[in-house]
Amino acid sequence: MGLAIQHLLGLEGISEEDITTILDTAERFHEVLQRDIKQVPTLRGKTVVNLFYESSTRTRISFELAEKRLSASPINFSATTSSVNKGETLRDTIRNIEAMKIDMVVVRHHAAGVPHFLTQCTDAVIINAGDGFHEHPTQALLDMMSIRRHFGRLRGLRVAIVGDILHSRVARSNAWGMRTMGVKLTLCGPPTLLPQHSEALGAKITDNLEEAARETDVLMLLRLQMERQQSGLFPAVREYRSRYGIDLEKMRMLPEHAIIMHPGPVNRGIELASNVADGPRSIILDQVTNGVAVRMAVLYLLGGGDNA
Amino acid sequence: MGLAIQHLLGLEGISEEDITTILDTAERFHEVLQRDIKQVPTLRGKTVVNLFYESSTRTRISFELAEKRLSASPINFSATTSSVNKGETLRDTIRNIEAMKIDMVVVRHHAAGVPHFLTQCTDAVIINAGDGFHEHPTQALLDMMSIRRHFGRLRGLRVAIVGDILHSRVARSNAWGMRTMGVKLTLCGPPTLLPQHSEALGAKITDNLEEAARETDVLMLLRLQMERQQSGLFPAVREYRSRYGIDLEKMRMLPEHAIIMHPGPVNRGIELASNVADGPRSIILDQVTNGVAVRMAVLYLLGGGDNA
Amino acid sequence: MGLAIQHLLGLEGISEEDITTILDTAERFHEVLQRDIKQVPTLRGKTVVNLFYESSTRTRISFELAEKRLSASPINFSATTSSVNKGETLRDTIRNIEAMKIDMVVVRHHAAGVPHFLTQCTDAVIINAGDGFHEHPTQALLDMMSIRRHFGRLRGLRVAIVGDILHSRVARSNAWGMRTMGVKLTLCGPPTLLPQHSEALGAKITDNLEEAARETDVLMLLRLQMERQQSGLFPAVREYRSRYGIDLEKMRMLPEHAIIMHPGPVNRGIELASNVADGPRSIILDQVTNGVAVRMAVLYLLGGGDNA
Repeated sequence: MGLAIQHLLGLEGISEEDITTILDTAERFHEVLQRDIKQVPTLRGKTVVNLFYESSTRTRISFELAEKRLSASPINFSATTSSVNKGETLRDTIRNIEAMKIDMVVVRHHAAGVPHFLTQCTDAVIINAGDGFHEHPTQALLDMMSIRRHFGRLRGLRVAIVGDILHSRVARSNAWGMRTMGVKLTLCGPPTLLPQHSEALGAKITDNLEEAARETDVLMLLRLQMERQQSGLFPAVREYRSRYGIDLEKMRMLPEHAIIMHPGPVNRGIELASNVADGPRSIILDQVTNGVAVRMAVLYLLGGGDNA
Repeated sequence: MGLAIQHLLGLEGISEEDITTILDTAERFHEVLQRDIKQVPTLRGKTVVNLFYESSTRTRISFELAEKRLSASPINFSATTSSVNKGETLRDTIRNIEAMKIDMVVVRHHAAGVPHFLTQCTDAVIINAGDGFHEHPTQALLDMMSIRRHFGRLRGLRVAIVGDILHSRVARSNAWGMRTMGVKLTLCGPPTLLPQHSEALGAKITDNLEEAARETDVLMLLRLQMERQQSGLFPAVREYRSRYGIDLEKMRMLPEHAIIMHPGPVNRGIELASNVADGPRSIILDQVTNGVAVRMAVLYLLGGGDNA
Repeated sequence: MGLAIQHLLGLEGISEEDITTILDTAERFHEVLQRDIKQVPTLRGKTVVNLFYESSTRTRISFELAEKRLSASPINFSATTSSVNKGETLRDTIRNIEAMKIDMVVVRHHAAGVPHFLTQCTDAVIINAGDGFHEHPTQALLDMMSIRRHFGRLRGLRVAIVGDILHSRVARSNAWGMRTMGVKLTLCGPPTLLPQHSEALGAKITDNLEEAARETDVLMLLRLQMERQQSGLFPAVREYRSRYGIDLEKMRMLPEHAIIMHPGPVNRGIELASNVADGPRSIILDQVTNGVAVRMAVLYLLGGGDNA
């Protein structure tokens, strides 16, 4: 029932068995979340450091909740209040954390590869909560869990991800994970925001929204990073919305059974109209719930907890 | 033994029975606070988010202590470290929090009405920790608890609140609560800082400190918000102190049995001289202790905990 | 088995018996830290406020870990998010904290004497986590624990501390503690950064590194506070490194059995070369581990916990 992996650095290279084990375990924790008392004692006495070098409310709270519901002790460490100011290197930080006998580290960092680097400095379990443009594996796991809960399976489903694919760690983690799980993936966005070489990701690439949408089972919109507009790669927001933003009109492109997803927070009126984001075909809030369950599963399976 | 209310948004409209139940329950928790081990297991497994859009040390710590002493799991969320930066709407924030299966939300916000708005977006229990110039109900509850502990009753007592009444959510919550509990209230301050229409609050209004003080049982001073001086409504600090600041000299206006209260933090030497704030007739520190007990009572009664 | 002291304000004046009791108790907690489950229930239901007026990641996390591993409830309070902005006095802050029935306060402040002052305002147990240029007693205790673990004893050992002695609370606390424990201490640094009157500290003073190093059992380097360079007291970094920075070349000055210590975070390439900091004779990371154990011991002994 354990995992082949010892850390969760990304979904690239993770086996179908490991992903299935995580999703199945998350289902059990999903049941726990429906109870009146949502806490289980499985990680009592274990310490988890949440090491966030990028600000993030949702992901940090989701992990902190997952940790507390497993009875672990979270310690929050954010870059703004840290020895980062004193010029301490990342390696010194992690070796100090290890010396304090910490069991697990959840890390978010603006540089790709930091979680992998940390595994070389410490024996603590490392969980990637987002590293640069590289991976955000728990997001992709919660996305796959949400799709599997809705359709009852993953294999053979068609998923389209729309937005700034080039800079999206969410898209990358989903691409790796979904390929492994037998999902047919299409990545769609403005030509300047699409990867040049997509074969490695095993996905179809298009800048045509209709082509991506018309036969898909899932349409996942990415958040438009407004701050990236100055880069020159980016079309005007108005143009982006008119070509790739989903409103009720554009929803007609989709098959009737297709659902809408978004990792949040949504730019309402840009990538998604409010009546679509809040509409009956959106499972955005289920994704949030499933995020806590998936993070509990990952912490539990990697943290060597007792039976749930 | 439950409450008629499901949320604590303000004291306007709350029944005498509910206020009495909260104060009686707070008395039981006050006993717990005298013990060596101050923790009870009543809210074990419940998650409370402290959602503070205005900085506040005392109120936030008081709530966090109350939550921990009931064995609930607090998650702290402050605006400066939040997705607020990402332009997320309040409604999205609360719906996400709800999707994470959180039981209760303690919210402080600079805009009046936010706690009420949140009840329309979520099934979680909402507790108002201060909203704009509207209400700060747990402060008024702790004030009434402190008065009741001192005098043994509330009905028939005379209370005078002195300061910037117009902008004080503390004064407003006390006005609603004290009217319900049969307290005779006088609101006193510079004419520009008094409400125009006071009948709704059921209180007597005066700009004459001596009139407010000479027959009162309780004199409650409000904190002078220095940052509001630029508004033009405000007298000079020196003038304010000479007319409304309480020192030993002005204490002679009060009946001998009358007590001094203040919601803190005190501007020493402005609204209260140090030897009055720290003197034998001040119950300011009792208010702080009672604040934890009242918040435990509110969390307990609304959170559906087991018997205390 | 208790301590003669009721607070830990500094090591000046603390008896050999008390220091020995703390170090012996820390050894027992060091064993706990090797276990899979590192938590003990000794301070369950006790509340500890971490009152940090200076930013500090390591010391704050080390205390927070120690508190959680004893099952106490930590409340974090940092100056940037506090009522400090509202001009509240330190005395009011602590009296409010006391009124909330808090058991212990861990305080770090830029002004010497603040922890002592707090003991006059409250009945809570006060633990000094660093006050100005005065003392940092838990750092000196963890240093002595680390030395005792390595050599099996303290009495008769020779320790040299090198750096900005004049402004170092770490050096001062070690000077008091080591004198009591029978260690022969040498303090070494640039002449402008040495105390004028050293007799009180019972240590030998020198600006000659070789003299300090050649017969020592322990060489402890202090962190160079870059921000203090503008003071005029300070040599250029390049000059400091060439005279007092320890690299493999300068390690030859030391006896072969001598070890390297540093309170962290290390300025790599300034006071210590990386291959010395990470080399086989460095016990820097042991110091970090021992820091958690020592803080558990202090909290436990002063907090009146049950048997460990």
